[in-house]
Amino acid sequence: MADAHAVARPDVAPPGKDAKRVVILGAGIAGLTAAYELSRKGYDCVLLEASHGAGGRNLTLRHGDKVDEIGNPQTCQFDADPDLYLNAGPARIPGHHTTLLDYCKELGVELAPFINENRNAWVQDDAAFAGRPVRNREYVTDARGFLAELAMKSVGAAHLDAAVTQEDGERLTAFLRGFGDLSSANKYVGSSRAGLVNVDYTMPEQIKSVRAFPEILKSRLWQTVMQFGEGADQAAMMMEPVGGMDKVVQGFMAKVGSLVRTHARVESVMLRQKKVEVIYNSPAGREKITADFCLNSIPFQLMAGIPNNFPAEYATVLTAIPRGSLFKIGFQMKERFWEKEQIFGGISWTTQDVTQLWYPCHGIHRQKGVVLGAYIYGGAASERFERLTPAARLEAAIEQGEKVHPGCYRKNVETGVSVPWHRMNYMLGCASEWSPEARQQHFARIQAPVGNHYMIGDQVSYHPGWQQGAMHSALHAVADIDKRVRAEKVAKGVSA
Amino acid sequence: MADAHAVARPDVAPPGKDAKRVVILGAGIAGLTAAYELSRKGYDCVLLEASHGAGGRNLTLRHGDKVDEIGNPQTCQFDADPDLYLNAGPARIPGHHTTLLDYCKELGVELAPFINENRNAWVQDDAAFAGRPVRNREYVTDARGFLAELAMKSVGAAHLDAAVTQEDGERLTAFLRGFGDLSSANKYVGSSRAGLVNVDYTMPEQIKSVRAFPEILKSRLWQTVMQFGEGADQAAMMMEPVGGMDKVVQGFMAKVGSLVRTHARVESVMLRQKKVEVIYNSPAGREKITADFCLNSIPFQLMAGIPNNFPAEYATVLTAIPRGSLFKIGFQMKERFWEKEQIFGGISWTTQDVTQLWYPCHGIHRQKGVVLGAYIYGGAASERFERLTPAARLEAAIEQGEKVHPGCYRKNVETGVSVPWHRMNYMLGCASEWSPEARQQHFARIQAPVGNHYMIGDQVSYHPGWQQGAMHSALHAVADIDKRVRAEKVAKGVSA
Repeated sequence: MADAHAVARPDVAPPGKDAKRVVILGAGIAGLTAAYELSRKGYDCVLLEASHGAGGRNLTLRHGDKVDEIGNPQTCQFDADPDLYLNAGPARIPGHHTTLLDYCKELGVELAPFINENRNAWVQDDAAFAGRPVRNREYVTDARGFLAELAMKSVGAAHLDAAVTQEDGERLTAFLRGFGDLSSANKYVGSSRAGLVNVDYTMPEQIKSVRAFPEILKSRLWQTVMQFGEGADQAAMMMEPVGGMDKVVQGFMAKVGSLVRTHARVESVMLRQKKVEVIYNSPAGREKITADFCLNSIPFQLMAGIPNNFPAEYATVLTAIPRGSLFKIGFQMKERFWEKEQIFGGISWTTQDVTQLWYPCHGIHRQKGVVLGAYIYGGAASERFERLTPAARLEAAIEQGEKVHPGCYRKNVETGVSVPWHRMNYMLGCASEWSPEARQQHFARIQAPVGNHYMIGDQVSYHPGWQQGAMHSALHAVADIDKRVRAEKVAKGVSA
Repeated sequence: MADAHAVARPDVAPPGKDAKRVVILGAGIAGLTAAYELSRKGYDCVLLEASHGAGGRNLTLRHGDKVDEIGNPQTCQFDADPDLYLNAGPARIPGHHTTLLDYCKELGVELAPFINENRNAWVQDDAAFAGRPVRNREYVTDARGFLAELAMKSVGAAHLDAAVTQEDGERLTAFLRGFGDLSSANKYVGSSRAGLVNVDYTMPEQIKSVRAFPEILKSRLWQTVMQFGEGADQAAMMMEPVGGMDKVVQGFMAKVGSLVRTHARVESVMLRQKKVEVIYNSPAGREKITADFCLNSIPFQLMAGIPNNFPAEYATVLTAIPRGSLFKIGFQMKERFWEKEQIFGGISWTTQDVTQLWYPCHGIHRQKGVVLGAYIYGGAASERFERLTPAARLEAAIEQGEKVHPGCYRKNVETGVSVPWHRMNYMLGCASEWSPEARQQHFARIQAPVGNHYMIGDQVSYHPGWQQGAMHSALHAVADIDKRVRAEKVAKGVSA
């Protein structure tokens, strides 16, 4: 496949008596991937993790789990039920993230379909339809109809390129009619795609009335709702691990958990002659590790504040790349009221701050469920929510959710939990935000090692915010270390 | 909800000592629904089923199952593994089929998401791209790009209706740019939505080159692939029962299985004074049932050939409505080779006779899987396949599948099974095909009872081919019977 991943998984070699020692900073997805691969190859690894558990931003919250937000520590109050959880970080996997998917297979992480787009879900925009929620399928069908009608006006007109023949024009007409479900007069007069007035099926079908084009145009959700499912990483088919995204973390931990030291806070990272020296603080006291290599996934902006002796041009990068702020709320709902609205998964959209509501597509027809009650990526909306107390955030999100599900939302909320990645301990931010200029100026430098020290993590990839990016950064570093170690052996006359 | 189903489930009443006897012909979804509801209300029901098992066209084939095709009996040779099955009849449920979904909940049928649309699946058309399979996402993204470019030419031109203001025009421009992922010059120059040349993420992204518009136009799959996911009954989110569609049948059978007599072939249906007399043949011999009511789901065209004393204007309808022919093949594949192609469910499309290939979205990452290797609905293609021997059908389908998955398809086929509904015993056809004229002329007559006899089944609905239609036809008849029985009691002075 031309589009298969190009970062090769390293070969496995038996550990030599001169196994190299590697210290890995951060037990997130990049760190775990590196530890797993290096261990398989016989390297002697240790992972230092500042927080109370492995996974990094791959965080699934269940009953009793701690949310380590600075200033606002919370405990997740969901019922003790394996089906009730919030994927506070990554929550879905596209089919082309083959490295992650291959690890899922290898580590026994069971996968199921995940639903982004649901035509039965709601679109709610204060600026359109008097703020009333409209079914995604009505909104999209009417929009497609008008769009096809508009495009049809260009067919046969002088607008077509010379390359489009008469025959092409006829094909195009047929396509546009199909695209918009137009009448034989090439007009959009409504479509069963928008849903029927009744679905009784014992009497003739009746299609819904068409919404006015200018009314649809009022909604700026056009630019998101209708395009979202086209995105390279969001288009169907998407997947999720059964039981929560941290099944990936658990899969790795079953292999390398013994190498992980939690509550281990790094105090300094010093490059030494062919070595890296790391000092860290843990409940057992202050300790020093001198390793042959260091793989460092500490967020750039935090690493910049940890004493180090990096060259200036390398250290500069650490402060040059801002991080996004991402905010999620999960609500445990007493009843799966959305299923009574014919919604069994997917996303409702709103122009309100909470932006999206996600319904679980697992556990269909059970009593309770966890709804993602806010998914805000950056900007003023994130800030407005982050600065509230946890209780006030839930209240604000309930008020907004109630607009999408009038009369059903508030009364079903049992408990909620909020995760502002910008304020989470040892993280203080979400995915790195690389501008094209920064890529040009800084990426190659920070991707390359300085001495025997490598920065890794999704921050050192062209796909921040995705586990696949984190994994590839780790595999890239592992491959480079391996190449150097082999070359060194050859230089010493030892068989590689 | 305005679009909730209007056919009400009947109330439950304790059985009276004068319980009415009801004979139900056919233990498909309509018959089972009627038996379940009538039994709950205290009616004394018996179901006569001509074939060896209940379910009708709700047929899931597993290891050792019999395919009762006239002239071509087959036995399904799939491995004995609950994950390896073919839903030979209905295979998916949309979220607005609430009656069916409510029964799933009530009967303990677990549901999971089902995937129709997968942007990683293939589109293969001999008339375009030299017959090579193209990723759905490339095909769709390029088409959207060109479409948006075309529509853009109408914006600002004299084409816009007066109702569309300048401000609307700007919104429309923004929308079209988003829709097609156009450049700032409103041109389509490629998009990451089509997938990247590599997804390495350790190096800069590179988008794929744009396909020529006339080349895309050559493919008549435009009319299907790109519109399919918009259909009222096919748009995401769809669902399927975990373990096979016949879990619905099993759910009903757990409640009313004791009322079902299999191998019971109806020989005559006679209307008598306030009764219906049914004679049937079974392994135990010839038997007669005289019932207060008869609910009859025997396919119209078969019922027309069974002796009866229906009024001519009623009997006429039985021969007036043709039935569609639908053809499916299931292949057990030795390896889930499609997962190596980044496909984990959904549909590939081809202009070849087999029309569609479906990949299971359950059992991801397991060793084997069952692919739907042909899904042909009527026309010459169905006929071409139906007239072949079962072995020759598989061979033809393998040859066509190989064009979609060059080098991977044939070598992975372990065994296959074909189901031509047009030739299946006691069925001889798939969904009824009602023309608008036939609806006008015949539907009301056949939906209404003749004496105490009711025709039911998806054939007596505005939604043939879907279980929801079958269920509503049954509920409609049950409600009518109940109304009549209550009215009769009132007339007799008995408290209803």
